[in-house]
Amino acid sequence: MQREITLTDQPIDLRRPLPPALVGTAGAVAEFQGLVRADEAGTAISALEYEAYAPMAERVIHRLCEELPAAGDCLFARITHRIGVVPVGEAAIHIVVAARHRAAAFAFLAAFMDRLKQEVPIWKVRALDSTGQPVPPRP
Amino acid sequence: MQREITLTDQPIDLRRPLPPALVGTAGAVAEFQGLVRADEAGTAISALEYEAYAPMAERVIHRLCEELPAAGDCLFARITHRIGVVPVGEAAIHIVVAARHRAAAFAFLAAFMDRLKQEVPIWKVRALDSTGQPVPPRP
Repeated sequence: MQREITLTDQPIDLRRPLPPALVGTAGAVAEFQGLVRADEAGTAISALEYEAYAPMAERVIHRLCEELPAAGDCLFARITHRIGVVPVGEAAIHIVVAARHRAAAFAFLAAFMDRLKQEVPIWKVRALDSTGQPVPPRP
Repeated sequence: MQREITLTDQPIDLRRPLPPALVGTAGAVAEFQGLVRADEAGTAISALEYEAYAPMAERVIHRLCEELPAAGDCLFARITHRIGVVPVGEAAIHIVVAARHRAAAFAFLAAFMDRLKQEVPIWKVRALDSTGQPVPPRP
């Protein structure tokens, strides 16, 4: 499975085309965007801030791309995670998976997201309020 | 769940933005594109041709959007199916689903595609070869 894995502090470009070699081969493209919502545990926020232990995060993402059972039936995965301040409504993560058939693409996408949350060292450090100040922890 | 359901004989615009009302509310956007592959049952093709019984197809798609268990936890679905000649590498179907959380979006997408194939009167009428002629049925 061909891979493109990127951690970036810039807005994610959601519109990059598939690699040309997939045209005619891929019959299914599944995508996921995880967007920042305007409330975090009931508090109104303007952004979330993410940090990563980048070398390890990339290593674990590569490993998941090898280990996940559905990966063998996928042709391509592009995984992009944004780090730093991500405003409400923007994507913190974007995944594109291409396969010959949809079952493999759906299976990879769902399994990857479950494992990402558990195993990849990328985390929300804080939520920011409308003035950009950290939201205080709730009592 | 807000819906946009379209059958079209034009190339599908894959880049339409989400409705603005979803910004801040949707935390998960899942998408699927079904692309035409360059071989159909082992024969090289240049395109597939789709036909629909359009009024009923739209009615059944609306019904699925009401019936599928995950629909109640989704905020928005945009379902676009192309009809007529769809060249290799282009999308015959595109679905965008938005939800607060990813589980509902993934569940809707997978269940919708399964039911679409079984219940919606849209079908491949023929495959076309590199000269645009119908591929003869295999002996």
